[in-house]
Amino acid sequence: MSLPIALDGMGGDAAPAMVVEGAAIALARDPDLRFVLFGDEARLRPLLDRHPELRAAVELVHTAEFVAADAKPSLALRQGRTSSMRLAIDAVKEGRAAAAVSAGNTGALMAMAKVVLRTLPGIDRPAICGVFPSRRRPVVILDLGANVACDAETLVQFAVMGTVFARAILGVEAPRIGLLNVGTEELKGDDVVRRAADMLRASPPPIRFGGFVEGTDLVEGSVEVVVTDGFTGNVALKIAEGVARMFRDALKETFTSSLRGKLGYLVARPALASLRERFDPRRYNGAMFLGLNGVVVKSHGGTDALGFSWAVKVAADLVRQGTNARITEEMRAVAHALAPVARAAAS
Amino acid sequence: MSLPIALDGMGGDAAPAMVVEGAAIALARDPDLRFVLFGDEARLRPLLDRHPELRAAVELVHTAEFVAADAKPSLALRQGRTSSMRLAIDAVKEGRAAAAVSAGNTGALMAMAKVVLRTLPGIDRPAICGVFPSRRRPVVILDLGANVACDAETLVQFAVMGTVFARAILGVEAPRIGLLNVGTEELKGDDVVRRAADMLRASPPPIRFGGFVEGTDLVEGSVEVVVTDGFTGNVALKIAEGVARMFRDALKETFTSSLRGKLGYLVARPALASLRERFDPRRYNGAMFLGLNGVVVKSHGGTDALGFSWAVKVAADLVRQGTNARITEEMRAVAHALAPVARAAAS
Repeated sequence: MSLPIALDGMGGDAAPAMVVEGAAIALARDPDLRFVLFGDEARLRPLLDRHPELRAAVELVHTAEFVAADAKPSLALRQGRTSSMRLAIDAVKEGRAAAAVSAGNTGALMAMAKVVLRTLPGIDRPAICGVFPSRRRPVVILDLGANVACDAETLVQFAVMGTVFARAILGVEAPRIGLLNVGTEELKGDDVVRRAADMLRASPPPIRFGGFVEGTDLVEGSVEVVVTDGFTGNVALKIAEGVARMFRDALKETFTSSLRGKLGYLVARPALASLRERFDPRRYNGAMFLGLNGVVVKSHGGTDALGFSWAVKVAADLVRQGTNARITEEMRAVAHALAPVARAAAS
Repeated sequence: MSLPIALDGMGGDAAPAMVVEGAAIALARDPDLRFVLFGDEARLRPLLDRHPELRAAVELVHTAEFVAADAKPSLALRQGRTSSMRLAIDAVKEGRAAAAVSAGNTGALMAMAKVVLRTLPGIDRPAICGVFPSRRRPVVILDLGANVACDAETLVQFAVMGTVFARAILGVEAPRIGLLNVGTEELKGDDVVRRAADMLRASPPPIRFGGFVEGTDLVEGSVEVVVTDGFTGNVALKIAEGVARMFRDALKETFTSSLRGKLGYLVARPALASLRERFDPRRYNGAMFLGLNGVVVKSHGGTDALGFSWAVKVAADLVRQGTNARITEEMRAVAHALAPVARAAAS
């Protein structure tokens, strides 16, 4: 069955070429995809002409407006009503597309998505969700920066969304949830995380609370889902990316700065190539906006066509798995189970 | 001039041998050091007998008690009054030692140090401070976990402590301070970081506020000092350590899993050795407890003798640079300059 996806043709450092080529890769992998592509027709048309198969699967909608990478979200929201980004989200709202994918300004995309799509029943605030290539397994982490401060109820909603996401995207039947903290003992952390832990312990399946986890656990992959507020999650993600990049660069320098280094690289090349593939950031591209009445995926702004194609795949998977209906359903069950806990806490 | 340092002989995974050997390395590097070594005499004496030069520089004080690595800080505080850790801190309080170094239980060490030594004038809460091997330069970061939640005033105090520390230990004359946030724009983050930023902007030299920084900046080394609350700082440190370890292990696997990998390693060995040295975690061992009436350094529990010797060096440097007197003095100047700001905010 054909699956229409709205694309912001103008978002991302290498847009629009990267978007068009990414869509072509995604289509070759998944021929049921269709695209509604928003952006500057004069620039997009020649790019599409290079990919006849893609051209047949694309409806091109012209707009000259786009959201700048450094635009303030509040300003983009007010002034960007005909931008390629906004039109892609509108297409989801109107049912012309089942999901939207953009590699543009994250803050603007979240602001627009919140206003246009609104949150799912039972969800107070949407979260940005990502997949982290940890040592043992891919780990789902949220929130990556949509909410700098969160109360315990919000963290529980994130846990529900993360659980449904891990089942849909990673195929884990009963993912364990870890609540990020400064230590694993029950008394660690502030009131918010301790209260969230109490609520998660009282939640019914499929919620499977694995207790507090530390930064190291995220990297080791001790659980399948890590829940935290957007401040800590954002810092965590950027540090992990930064350290990974520093090591890649240091390794590259090691293998190019001396003759022996260069020779060693040539000899060990097959092994090093598989190392590079394992940690290829493009394979983990795509931050999902969860908790909205519609699927929106944010591709990394600096990614290439291959990375963008993965973000498109994640959007398609989320739609096909009925993720949003599942989130609503599980959230209802959790809220029902937690009602006595909430009443006890309030009295 | 001789400098007496109190050592917790029983703290750390490889204690007591690691402590004694670490002290021997530190002494060989810095012959003015003297040690007051607390712990089980029956185990420490034979170890000291292997290092005649160290033996002459050590006063051994027997105690059979020690704080377990997994002991609850509150319990250790009540029941560990004659533990090797507590006696080392007492020695600083009593002036028998100029600083204490322990590789034991961090929470217990902080709890004891707070109760025994109390905070410096003008400082509400001590912080755990570390040095991070970033791309461009070593970066000072605090708090690493002593305070899960911090108000703006506390973050400003951390900035003062971090500045004095960076001058003392890294020799940077006017270190730039970055406040960790989810973005660098002035409007990002919560009220606490925004208010702390306002206060830091109004602070006199040597405080040099470089604005908000993100997780990536910590890794890149865009500033010399990064200030954050203990929750985020702890997660940041553990993620950075975790990712670094994951890469080291993946690299090792790459060079041992195939014949070409092994050969490549042999050829490139000199270059790879310098890479390993650059990121050797032992060189960055030692988390400093800043803001107390006394110098206390926490060595990583899993470190070896060489790592422990670096923690001892940091303790000696902090004493010789008169760090605590400088913190008190700078804090007085900052509080004076901020008094009008605080009055304006309160009215």
